[in-house]
Amino acid sequence: MFKIDNEENQARTGKLKTMHGVVKTPFFMPIATKGTAKQVSHEELEYIGSNAIIANAFVLSLKPGMEVIKKFKNIHNFIKWDKTIFTDSGGFQILSKSFLHKADDKGVYFKNPFDGSKKFFSPEDIIKIEEEIGGDVIMALDYVPHYGNSKDYIADCTRITHLWAERCIKVHNKNRKQLIFGICQGGTFKDLREKSAEFINNLDFDGVALGGLGIGEGRTLMFDAVNQSIKKISKNKTRYLMGVGSPEDIIKAVSLGVDCFDSRFPTMNARHGGIFTKIGKINIEKACYKYDESPLDENCKCSVCKKFSKAYIHHLYRTYEPIRDRYGNIHNLFFIQNLMEEIKKSIEENRFEKFKKEFLKDYKINEEKDSKFSYS
Amino acid sequence: MFKIDNEENQARTGKLKTMHGVVKTPFFMPIATKGTAKQVSHEELEYIGSNAIIANAFVLSLKPGMEVIKKFKNIHNFIKWDKTIFTDSGGFQILSKSFLHKADDKGVYFKNPFDGSKKFFSPEDIIKIEEEIGGDVIMALDYVPHYGNSKDYIADCTRITHLWAERCIKVHNKNRKQLIFGICQGGTFKDLREKSAEFINNLDFDGVALGGLGIGEGRTLMFDAVNQSIKKISKNKTRYLMGVGSPEDIIKAVSLGVDCFDSRFPTMNARHGGIFTKIGKINIEKACYKYDESPLDENCKCSVCKKFSKAYIHHLYRTYEPIRDRYGNIHNLFFIQNLMEEIKKSIEENRFEKFKKEFLKDYKINEEKDSKFSYS
Repeated sequence: MFKIDNEENQARTGKLKTMHGVVKTPFFMPIATKGTAKQVSHEELEYIGSNAIIANAFVLSLKPGMEVIKKFKNIHNFIKWDKTIFTDSGGFQILSKSFLHKADDKGVYFKNPFDGSKKFFSPEDIIKIEEEIGGDVIMALDYVPHYGNSKDYIADCTRITHLWAERCIKVHNKNRKQLIFGICQGGTFKDLREKSAEFINNLDFDGVALGGLGIGEGRTLMFDAVNQSIKKISKNKTRYLMGVGSPEDIIKAVSLGVDCFDSRFPTMNARHGGIFTKIGKINIEKACYKYDESPLDENCKCSVCKKFSKAYIHHLYRTYEPIRDRYGNIHNLFFIQNLMEEIKKSIEENRFEKFKKEFLKDYKINEEKDSKFSYS
Repeated sequence: MFKIDNEENQARTGKLKTMHGVVKTPFFMPIATKGTAKQVSHEELEYIGSNAIIANAFVLSLKPGMEVIKKFKNIHNFIKWDKTIFTDSGGFQILSKSFLHKADDKGVYFKNPFDGSKKFFSPEDIIKIEEEIGGDVIMALDYVPHYGNSKDYIADCTRITHLWAERCIKVHNKNRKQLIFGICQGGTFKDLREKSAEFINNLDFDGVALGGLGIGEGRTLMFDAVNQSIKKISKNKTRYLMGVGSPEDIIKAVSLGVDCFDSRFPTMNARHGGIFTKIGKINIEKACYKYDESPLDENCKCSVCKKFSKAYIHHLYRTYEPIRDRYGNIHNLFFIQNLMEEIKKSIEENRFEKFKKEFLKDYKINEEKDSKFSYS
């Protein structure tokens, strides 16, 4: 259940109560597709302060498979994480050539990337899987079109998404105490976005997610779509911008009223040396850090910054030591978590707009790349 | 400095005092070639109970390079590990096609694997590098022949090793308070092994390492060589069996009087699913563990066994989650460290032979593979 605590213009703080505790909003979820964050242990996530992670029901149903999870009763017990778990439905995997075979009104035909076999999943199948997996918040099945598809095509994906959403909500067993979120689509077309947000908002979902964004449309169109959607979503529903993101996008989205985020961005960046700092993203692989005795970010209190120098982390990157990903991921996830804490605090103290302005003034962004930017 | 505390037949416990603390012997060092253990953080090594690690002076001199280490004053400060560090000299890299160009009486001509350039290192160069790196125990340069080389060839490598050892000891600045260990060679030839151990033992080294073993000669010949060498090494010198090893080889080597070990074996195995347990090495990737709710080893108190099931670790292995290596490494290193603790305790209590017998009775070994076994 969701409750708003503070508001400043569109931005708000609140509490999302799930079977496994209370998650203060706005919050960011590290991705744990197969039941673990990338290179980061549960203990480290707790140290970072993450109260929720997101796994992927579709992927888990293939491996380890439902029989294993049922033997362990639920995902919490299988992976030994006792805080909130979201499960994504597999809609996003429709974008992936290694998964999608075809999709129609009935559901989606996936290729199993582990063994090449074809599997059909109806929206009802996905909900049953998500119920058996036992996550705290389950996502409806949506049909995510690629950016650049025709308006007709995207309108049809949106129609199918709505059809599936109705079927998901109809079949979901409320007795299980799992929350269920719907996902709206509509590409970057104002009329489709508004219609979709309104449609999903009018169903009996506990939250509304904004899907199909951050996939190559660039930041201007993305924020237009966020804005158009949120205007149609009731205030009392949790708003979840899927797949986003970067420090600068998160802070902007919060100012538009978003409560919830998940993204590969922090760990994907760390894999290539991209490290978040107060003054923007740096690339730790650059030669200028070879002798640098200072921590990754002077202001950061993460375990990596408290112990190591830029020079040592640079050395681990330059020599391809696999532990580099762990250290980069811990730092970047800690940076985002810390940002969420500062965002919440500033909204509570009614100085979020000021905080946002100051943060974005310091945090340098490569504007040129922004228009082509994609999270997928 | 080294002091023996307890003896039971050839096995002994003792204390090796270095600039960075006391290491109780016999002990096992995790490998930290480039300044980090593989996937395992310093904090985790401390949790495991490792009091010493071994880095590679030759590799560190190439990357990050001596200028970086000198800027940080020493390796301890660069990598932020304040316990004992051994540095290997580069002798072992002579075995590697990606490093060796040629070697002669003067020294070794290495290819820099990072940029292809050729570099000459004399024994004096290596000692200077090891002194500047600032490890607590530095190793002399040795010439490691391949198993299967002719006796004449191995005799010549041994002659060169002795020549280099004399030059290393001559040039080493004792004021630095670093301990220095010599390395004996001799392949699997009794006369060469004995001669080499005697020669190295008679130089002013603080410890004597047994080099060029576990490289394909099989366990019978390896233990023959260990036995032949140790008989020629003074009791009061630390004996270091380089590159070994497995639980069963460590316990046998201790019974012959070895004090010190390092090996890739625990982490190399974990990378391929090989997990040490009381009843022998299991392969966690096997289908039989898919539903297994028990920990990797019922008797183990490591952080992985305390939290996770075999089924979850199996799942991480089967889905190639990179964190699998960390969990496998932590468990295997903890297993070895725990074995060292049990070995020390049983020698102190004069029941090592009994403990060894019981351990080896439970710990199943694939004898067939033993004859071809290699640690390199």
